[in-house]
Amino acid sequence: MTHFKTIATAAALTVLPSLALAQDAAPGFDEIGPYIMTTLLFCMAGFLVFFMAAGFAMLEGGLVRSKNVTMQMTKNIGLYSIAAIMYWFMGFNLMYPGDFNGYVGTFFSPTVLDPVGVAAADAALDYASVGSDFFFQLVFVAATASIVSGALAERIKLWPFLIFVVVLTGVMYPISGSWQWGGGWLSEAGFSDFAGSTVVHSVGGWAALAGAIVLGPRLGKYKDGKVNPMPGSNLALATLGTFILWLGWFGFNGGSQLAMGTVGDVSDVSRIFANTNMAAAAGAVTALLLTQIFYKKPDLTMVLNGALAGLVSITAEPLAPTLFGALWIGAIGGVIVVFTVPMLDKFKIDDVVGAIPVHLFAGIWGTIAVIFYNSDASLMTQLTGIVAYGVFTFVGSLIVWFILKAAMGIRVSEEAEISGLDTAEMGMEAYPDFSKG
Amino acid sequence: MTHFKTIATAAALTVLPSLALAQDAAPGFDEIGPYIMTTLLFCMAGFLVFFMAAGFAMLEGGLVRSKNVTMQMTKNIGLYSIAAIMYWFMGFNLMYPGDFNGYVGTFFSPTVLDPVGVAAADAALDYASVGSDFFFQLVFVAATASIVSGALAERIKLWPFLIFVVVLTGVMYPISGSWQWGGGWLSEAGFSDFAGSTVVHSVGGWAALAGAIVLGPRLGKYKDGKVNPMPGSNLALATLGTFILWLGWFGFNGGSQLAMGTVGDVSDVSRIFANTNMAAAAGAVTALLLTQIFYKKPDLTMVLNGALAGLVSITAEPLAPTLFGALWIGAIGGVIVVFTVPMLDKFKIDDVVGAIPVHLFAGIWGTIAVIFYNSDASLMTQLTGIVAYGVFTFVGSLIVWFILKAAMGIRVSEEAEISGLDTAEMGMEAYPDFSKG
Amino acid sequence: MTHFKTIATAAALTVLPSLALAQDAAPGFDEIGPYIMTTLLFCMAGFLVFFMAAGFAMLEGGLVRSKNVTMQMTKNIGLYSIAAIMYWFMGFNLMYPGDFNGYVGTFFSPTVLDPVGVAAADAALDYASVGSDFFFQLVFVAATASIVSGALAERIKLWPFLIFVVVLTGVMYPISGSWQWGGGWLSEAGFSDFAGSTVVHSVGGWAALAGAIVLGPRLGKYKDGKVNPMPGSNLALATLGTFILWLGWFGFNGGSQLAMGTVGDVSDVSRIFANTNMAAAAGAVTALLLTQIFYKKPDLTMVLNGALAGLVSITAEPLAPTLFGALWIGAIGGVIVVFTVPMLDKFKIDDVVGAIPVHLFAGIWGTIAVIFYNSDASLMTQLTGIVAYGVFTFVGSLIVWFILKAAMGIRVSEEAEISGLDTAEMGMEAYPDFSKG
Repeated sequence: MTHFKTIATAAALTVLPSLALAQDAAPGFDEIGPYIMTTLLFCMAGFLVFFMAAGFAMLEGGLVRSKNVTMQMTKNIGLYSIAAIMYWFMGFNLMYPGDFNGYVGTFFSPTVLDPVGVAAADAALDYASVGSDFFFQLVFVAATASIVSGALAERIKLWPFLIFVVVLTGVMYPISGSWQWGGGWLSEAGFSDFAGSTVVHSVGGWAALAGAIVLGPRLGKYKDGKVNPMPGSNLALATLGTFILWLGWFGFNGGSQLAMGTVGDVSDVSRIFANTNMAAAAGAVTALLLTQIFYKKPDLTMVLNGALAGLVSITAEPLAPTLFGALWIGAIGGVIVVFTVPMLDKFKIDDVVGAIPVHLFAGIWGTIAVIFYNSDASLMTQLTGIVAYGVFTFVGSLIVWFILKAAMGIRVSEEAEISGLDTAEMGMEAYPDFSKG
Repeated sequence: MTHFKTIATAAALTVLPSLALAQDAAPGFDEIGPYIMTTLLFCMAGFLVFFMAAGFAMLEGGLVRSKNVTMQMTKNIGLYSIAAIMYWFMGFNLMYPGDFNGYVGTFFSPTVLDPVGVAAADAALDYASVGSDFFFQLVFVAATASIVSGALAERIKLWPFLIFVVVLTGVMYPISGSWQWGGGWLSEAGFSDFAGSTVVHSVGGWAALAGAIVLGPRLGKYKDGKVNPMPGSNLALATLGTFILWLGWFGFNGGSQLAMGTVGDVSDVSRIFANTNMAAAAGAVTALLLTQIFYKKPDLTMVLNGALAGLVSITAEPLAPTLFGALWIGAIGGVIVVFTVPMLDKFKIDDVVGAIPVHLFAGIWGTIAVIFYNSDASLMTQLTGIVAYGVFTFVGSLIVWFILKAAMGIRVSEEAEISGLDTAEMGMEAYPDFSKG
Repeated sequence: MTHFKTIATAAALTVLPSLALAQDAAPGFDEIGPYIMTTLLFCMAGFLVFFMAAGFAMLEGGLVRSKNVTMQMTKNIGLYSIAAIMYWFMGFNLMYPGDFNGYVGTFFSPTVLDPVGVAAADAALDYASVGSDFFFQLVFVAATASIVSGALAERIKLWPFLIFVVVLTGVMYPISGSWQWGGGWLSEAGFSDFAGSTVVHSVGGWAALAGAIVLGPRLGKYKDGKVNPMPGSNLALATLGTFILWLGWFGFNGGSQLAMGTVGDVSDVSRIFANTNMAAAAGAVTALLLTQIFYKKPDLTMVLNGALAGLVSITAEPLAPTLFGALWIGAIGGVIVVFTVPMLDKFKIDDVVGAIPVHLFAGIWGTIAVIFYNSDASLMTQLTGIVAYGVFTFVGSLIVWFILKAAMGIRVSEEAEISGLDTAEMGMEAYPDFSKG
């Protein structure tokens, strides 16, 4: 389109004929309305989930120490950008191969969009445009990679991390994703994961766990049998990040309805919004109460992670539960975070932002919780899916991390870690005007 | 839905029959289009208003001193979460009881959503889905509670504040809200408040005013007849918060059109967008000019509050005014802020972020301003509504604050206030890496 | 509307007749659907682009030194507000005059919205509501002004800057904009600029370049033949700003499709989303790789500007390219930023945030790149447009800057610049609690 307001005339030339033809043969809204609405749903949900990239960046940037913030920002914008390219280059068609053996689809088939101004006759009128579908799927894979960057913060080198992202977003996530959302063997087996408690969040969590084990804890984190707290540098930023993630989750879960053009579908989208919000609220309140009760002081970072755990918990089935169901499912997410964050420390697994409790543990819980409200789901199948994603992603990630470690090293030098990654690796402080306390 | 791209096939099984049936009896877009569009409006407006929770958090986090930021973040995410739960548990059906005596509806009737995949025959085709309506209403009540948290910052204890939020969002706001939006006595009387200058903003302001009086000013704020400025710790954050609130207000006012499925309705939504934006701009520019003229220096916090006051001012009637009307109504909002912020200080009422001038005073102004462009509104009825909401909320809040004060104390200790609520009450600093100047 | 849930009954009175009449003569969705969808597109894209005002504010606030942050925030909220008022007062109708001489339209014709509840018969059914169109156009002009504020930061006085914004948004941008989007001579000549690489971004860049030349560099920036780096004070904020801008760009480019009510149009919107995202990702990755290769360290501010340059590069033609096309067009944007930022320093043109490379140089590139995928565009015409906008805006801006300089001075005093604009000009620090390093 060349110009805006005067386009009215130009547009008339395009639109009016179809209006005129509507009396004859051109498709009317009864036929094209669902396609338009669902395509819009994907665009809208897509930009919301895109914004989660900013949410992860702010959450992580707020929870690392100020000396590592520039690095954390670089990792986050880098991983999103790499995910966007890799998912176009191979991920999307590997994940959604159409007919395939149910385990691995076709490699190296870059995404091709619908032609410009696609005609109704050539469009997937029972679904949505390729561009909207691709965009919506793409922002999901980026979320998976973001989970990893938080757990491994403050000590991993930039480039090995980004190479891991290449493999995760281009190969591992698409392959395992195809098992369920691509119509593969788990989907055939009846596994149920509406918006990705397992397919997205646990996968990110397993990759992070493998990385945290191979990488080891930050210097001084576990010393003389004690856990040394390393408080985040900017809790306002971390809170902002949590709110942005919460916002994005309406798109994450709501868009996963995959349709908005009927009364039932649009109502379901709104039902998902209400349930998603409730689970987050319940997770936050639960963490607030539990930290007050057990530690005598409310703990903001636990509350933030409680909200996120509530969100992850409801993600496998945000549609079927009642609001009360969303409440207790989310609340258990909050419980999980409060009790598994210290547990990880016992195993000396150093997860800087709490990504593993939030995304892996609450993700497993959410996947199990499906059985309470979705009568088509069975515990056995849910466990099968959880284990399958776990084994594949954890073992695959371990291998990649070990190769990267052997090939180029994945950890910064001790001096760099102590002085901070920003000056040592980036030559650029995030807050140069402020002296350190 | 189990999987995404291949869902095209699955969805076809769901959608195509209805397409096929369209020729027969199934509802076509002429019948279901308005329902779909209005449900979408509520979802979209709802996520925008949800994000205002982040806006309030950032605004308040930026305007308190750095030693109280963790506490302010905890209050904000806590209050939103509690509002979400209380509004489900009792607020929504108390506020919208259907037929009732016009003053108080039914207590303890938790919200029930439409069934999954509700059929067109069972849906409120002349309105929207319950889930979207509930979600949209819920984010409004959270805004009311956010107003209170700003005014009472830096000295109120966490738990009494959150208990107040329970009462405000579960009981007080829903009861008074039912008078107007639930079809109660004020609605019958012809009171007009399109999106809540009074129902939401003044109510928040009255509750804040009562709290500020009972709580008293911060230590050292008013000393030897002088007002001691206590500058906010992060004006970039406060500016971000203001922009987020401005963004959210498009949903706040636009969504209050409550319909988007006709030419008139969608055009009205866009008209509201344009007017809302204009009022905010006018409030900001007015505050900028006035502070330059009267104080010789432009005052950023006044400009931010000027924009917000412009928004509150247009909220009672964002549809009827011309753009010029929105301009002068918003501009007077800006005037109000600049002159009433110092006035509150004269009465030694310590409102940390200027919430009372912005939400209460500009809210009253906006409610009066309705009469200039909406010929159905009368000054007398508008004043009746203003007074009714004022008396009910102010007296009710005073009682609750006094009970809380007597029962558990609402104010932190002097030492805690001086050292900062973050270390004293939370044991967690918001910016631990930065030494204080 | 007076109240919400009970409105169902009230709405029924409004909607049901039209449903009933649908069988007779009232317009059905085949007729009004496109209008509703396009109006919704403008509202949605409009609020996304509105949010870019926050993005620019955060980006610039993060890239200036902490002593100038309050000023930068004031400039940003001030410029947006002024743009909103000026564009209503004269800009919109000057830019879209309908029939005119092709060069300059009518001055001083404030925007008039559709009447409340406009009837289908009176609405532009082949386009969208005036309110949505006006709002969408308005947020574009604000973006142009934001570009200028970044380049001239840390030394320009507030009021001369805001007066320049009055002229830019009320006169210069609307006049030159009318040449293309108002159906003027460049549009007639076949110039192609889908969403404004030239019309918006280059124009902002030219105005900034003129200002930077007249204003001169910051004190100490170029000393003894050396470029003295003046690092930004908050790279987390700058990253947030970049993500917000990226988010807003989906509205910027997607909304410029100017229609969403047909299968072709909504598919094109989604195609634009996918391409826009790809170009940004490619720009970021390119800058990341290039700074690693050439400077041995990845440079976060270059990566942020690389993403933005990718976005600007695809803005002139976000629809026609394949995803691979978007990738390489965006990547060249990243190359441009990495190599022209130091180039500007060689000419001692001090552009604080890199706005000129990002918006002007990448904007020129994007305008040229149109020819590779849009067969209707010719290199000659594209260059004609680039030169026409350049000469008009650069010369016009130079004149305005010189007049402002002569009339009132545009630069703060040396003392003010050294001590910081926040204390000297505003009397208000952005981060008063943190001591400077």
